[in-house]
Amino acid sequence: MMQATRIGELLTQTALDTPVLAQGWVRTRRELKDLCFLELNDGSCLANLQVLVPKESPLYDRAAGLHTGAALGVNGLLVASPAQGQRVELQAQALTIYGDADPNSYPLQKKRHSFEFLRTIAHLRPRTNSFGAVLRIRNHCAMAIHQFFQERGFVWMHTPILTASDCEGAGELFTVTGFNLNHLPRNDQGAVDFGQDFFGRPAYLTVSGQLEAEIMASALSKVYTFGPTFRAENSNTSRHLAEFWMIEPEMAFCDLAGDMDLAEAFLQYVFNYVLETGIADLEFCQQRIDATILETAHNIIQQSFARMSYTEAIEQLQKSGKTFTYPVEWGLDLQSEHERYLAEELCKKPVIVYDYPTQIKAFYMRLNQDETTVAAMDVLVPRVGELIGGSQREERHDVLLKRLQNQGLDPAVYWWYLDLRRYGTVPHAGFGLGFERLIQFMTGMGNIRDVIPFPRTPDGIDF
Amino acid sequence: MMQATRIGELLTQTALDTPVLAQGWVRTRRELKDLCFLELNDGSCLANLQVLVPKESPLYDRAAGLHTGAALGVNGLLVASPAQGQRVELQAQALTIYGDADPNSYPLQKKRHSFEFLRTIAHLRPRTNSFGAVLRIRNHCAMAIHQFFQERGFVWMHTPILTASDCEGAGELFTVTGFNLNHLPRNDQGAVDFGQDFFGRPAYLTVSGQLEAEIMASALSKVYTFGPTFRAENSNTSRHLAEFWMIEPEMAFCDLAGDMDLAEAFLQYVFNYVLETGIADLEFCQQRIDATILETAHNIIQQSFARMSYTEAIEQLQKSGKTFTYPVEWGLDLQSEHERYLAEELCKKPVIVYDYPTQIKAFYMRLNQDETTVAAMDVLVPRVGELIGGSQREERHDVLLKRLQNQGLDPAVYWWYLDLRRYGTVPHAGFGLGFERLIQFMTGMGNIRDVIPFPRTPDGIDF
Repeated sequence: MMQATRIGELLTQTALDTPVLAQGWVRTRRELKDLCFLELNDGSCLANLQVLVPKESPLYDRAAGLHTGAALGVNGLLVASPAQGQRVELQAQALTIYGDADPNSYPLQKKRHSFEFLRTIAHLRPRTNSFGAVLRIRNHCAMAIHQFFQERGFVWMHTPILTASDCEGAGELFTVTGFNLNHLPRNDQGAVDFGQDFFGRPAYLTVSGQLEAEIMASALSKVYTFGPTFRAENSNTSRHLAEFWMIEPEMAFCDLAGDMDLAEAFLQYVFNYVLETGIADLEFCQQRIDATILETAHNIIQQSFARMSYTEAIEQLQKSGKTFTYPVEWGLDLQSEHERYLAEELCKKPVIVYDYPTQIKAFYMRLNQDETTVAAMDVLVPRVGELIGGSQREERHDVLLKRLQNQGLDPAVYWWYLDLRRYGTVPHAGFGLGFERLIQFMTGMGNIRDVIPFPRTPDGIDF
Repeated sequence: MMQATRIGELLTQTALDTPVLAQGWVRTRRELKDLCFLELNDGSCLANLQVLVPKESPLYDRAAGLHTGAALGVNGLLVASPAQGQRVELQAQALTIYGDADPNSYPLQKKRHSFEFLRTIAHLRPRTNSFGAVLRIRNHCAMAIHQFFQERGFVWMHTPILTASDCEGAGELFTVTGFNLNHLPRNDQGAVDFGQDFFGRPAYLTVSGQLEAEIMASALSKVYTFGPTFRAENSNTSRHLAEFWMIEPEMAFCDLAGDMDLAEAFLQYVFNYVLETGIADLEFCQQRIDATILETAHNIIQQSFARMSYTEAIEQLQKSGKTFTYPVEWGLDLQSEHERYLAEELCKKPVIVYDYPTQIKAFYMRLNQDETTVAAMDVLVPRVGELIGGSQREERHDVLLKRLQNQGLDPAVYWWYLDLRRYGTVPHAGFGLGFERLIQFMTGMGNIRDVIPFPRTPDGIDF
């Protein structure tokens, strides 16, 4: 049997007048004069390959009987196309019908569907132009991330998904158990006897791999995670998922300035990469989803990011003359409206805000000399607000111990984390980035449920 | 401040007589005649950079007071080394001590430690030669996998970790809940009211992303997963983890032969890649862990794999004259001892066994014409046995429905999986590979707990 060629390759590279085999799904079929036209898509690119079957062909009746969604193999001759906007078309010589799709029940007919509806058929929505584009961009973006770190000598490490602790003493955790919930063993006091559970104690799904990444950075110097993380928050918003992928680089021998440099270089690299490899899909998103995404992408890669301290940001917000819903006051966290003002209106480009008040940040962030701020930084971008959050980590054993205690955390639980500060401690820093937030930002998709194949939310665990 | 250069680069690429900054951890320190020698490692490679501090240097006393594990920055001149086995050494001109390590309590002293002991200090073991090597090989291997698939037009997709179903109707599942186990809401019958749980119904950790990968392959043609999967099996063996990473490619328009071709090309590519990029670490494993791994690697890349049907494999086993612990009989599954005989003794190379009896394989594998076997395949390798398991999937709606029913599975649960066979169904195939098994095979590490940063097992969820 002849080897098939992907449609992406047929459309752009394959020589004219070559016999080829194309395989894919029919997007549309129409008859015009003496010809049947089939638009074939195999997911390798946004564009379809136009297949022609003339009326006099013995294949005509079978072709004309096909429906949107049918799976086909077409042997034929690839020829120059007289039609505008396409280099080639395929003159069918043989047709293999793998499976048709009944037009009376197949939900993906020609008309455009709402994203809400498509979420209910998440097993079919990858066959639409929008989701094909988003999924290919997602893949490019993931590869850009790997390539960025690998080129810089970072090691990809897999931090555990199952954990006995949670990273920040905060966050809503999912509990994981080997028990049958209807038959829980109990101790003398009537409480659940976790000693009999799979791990011999309560277990949770991770909310961050950072602490484990610090372990690895204390040996390999530069590492990053790229894996799933979880929040059992009951948030039915367009920006929250119960399960999402996160990227967390961690660098030994690095301070906050180096961390900010990395975050900036990282975003610029990733946008550059996707602009190069996924431009057709980005242009589709620009046309159909959000007409500002290409401008945003170029805004990111063409200039260096602004940087300002939290204290300066508060001053700028206070003298902005804007009316905000949430109060602006030193010591309070920045809200999305504040972040967007700083990036969109004040700086008109991404801005990194650093040195946040100690009391609004996590225990592991390094205490600055002023003792009222920590070496934290957030990268704020137009339209989205915070995209990246990072910090230099507290590497001084005594300071870290005090901060744990001040936050009411049990140092015994963090024995290994403290050990890193006892043995060969180094200044180190890192950041975290929600992968789906990045894809949302890049594609302009309004709802985070539409940038991950199978979203997990309080009302959704189908597929 | 001067930009630091990674030790891997200093040792192999940096020009002689260049002023440089090296940062890392002291592996050993010794004094010899009028010199203090520090072996510095930063995890970028196996080898250490030798730092020299002469007695007359004002740095000498500080250098001579350092201990194994101390974190340092050393400014100095990179010069040709008179010592054997190293191109360069570093003449120290300035010393920054980030953190020392108390030799009375730091567990990683010069002597070799057992892997069992190192598991109890998994936060420090990445600083040993063995674990550094394994972690770097793990990274190379992961990148080889991405590159292999990306070069062939596969899209990396993230299948869900949280799921309401399990893939094969088998396997021990972890339950995930937002409930506090000590305060479970109950319905009128006294059973747990899952309607009030986070997802409104019972949720589990995935055991495989295959079914979702089939969804994606039915739109993008070629996809692969690379993510964590889970088993709540109470197996305290050297080959089982409760949490491990899996790779699962899935291809539309592909049959079993194409699937076997992919598996073979995949393993050869990955071994080739790691032999090229990680040879120093592999050689270390060869010396210290298992003296056969390089031979194994070359055995894999230098010749095509053997292929034989399950039926032929049973015949070969029966006429082998060997005494096996487990019975050899058509219809029974192959045990590890059988698999190893086929690969190690009969074929003396990897062998792909295909067309297994229907009753020992999963419902989704394609029924062959003989109706007694399915289009399944396992790649068996010397020393390990099964490394890859795959199949062509049943794409015929009526046959799949019957097989679901025969196995007592509820078709209503698989409505979306069946939909793929109703709308544009295609022949498709894929396989699954446990990432840690591959790393074990490649490095020769005897226990799977030692090829993942933080193993999760019935007795282990530390760190």
